[in-house]
Amino acid sequence: MGTRSRTASACCASVLDAPLSEGEAEDLARAFAALADPVRLRLLSLIAEAGEICSCDLLEPLGKSQPTVSHHTKALADAGLISGVKQGRWVWWSVVPERMAMVADSLSAARRSAKV
Amino acid sequence: MGTRSRTASACCASVLDAPLSEGEAEDLARAFAALADPVRLRLLSLIAEAGEICSCDLLEPLGKSQPTVSHHTKALADAGLISGVKQGRWVWWSVVPERMAMVADSLSAARRSAKV
Repeated sequence: MGTRSRTASACCASVLDAPLSEGEAEDLARAFAALADPVRLRLLSLIAEAGEICSCDLLEPLGKSQPTVSHHTKALADAGLISGVKQGRWVWWSVVPERMAMVADSLSAARRSAKV
Repeated sequence: MGTRSRTASACCASVLDAPLSEGEAEDLARAFAALADPVRLRLLSLIAEAGEICSCDLLEPLGKSQPTVSHHTKALADAGLISGVKQGRWVWWSVVPERMAMVADSLSAARRSAKV
């Protein structure tokens, strides 16, 4: 394992590449914790599908109150998975594709087999 | 959205395909909850790297006791991410690639852009 290149670890830690450092594991665990809730996953799917969506349009499809939706969007934003732009009393949310890809890639074997 | 095909939803729910059903979201959330722990991610990375590994060989690299490692391997196994074969007092663990791919794909935009 001593010959393994870890130069890309800061951007692209993979669960499939041992040893995952404690710092990498902690960052990934935070992202997975944000995803470990069915309402947040449905919320994320609505934002991803829309591209950009007003928080006012998330209440009805989820059947949740504004404080609940705000709580969950904050958790996703804190994990870096979505970002928002405030306009008046509402926020327009969109997915952060680089972060989503980083989290997805951490579970993918693609880079592992491509490694030199 | 009414014209969207959902025939593959049982095997391949994607967070990027709204609407994610409540059942799909709950199953995925369980997998993410199992991943939402840095020790479990490092454990998973060790198992993935090894291909198959005796639980006796997981204690030292993680610096954790046997009960702690057993607790975490059970959480990963309950989420379907690893499977084990008992041999004597130890268990040989390996990753369940299909489940890992399903969880990774749920965050990937690949199938979304490929959709007809």
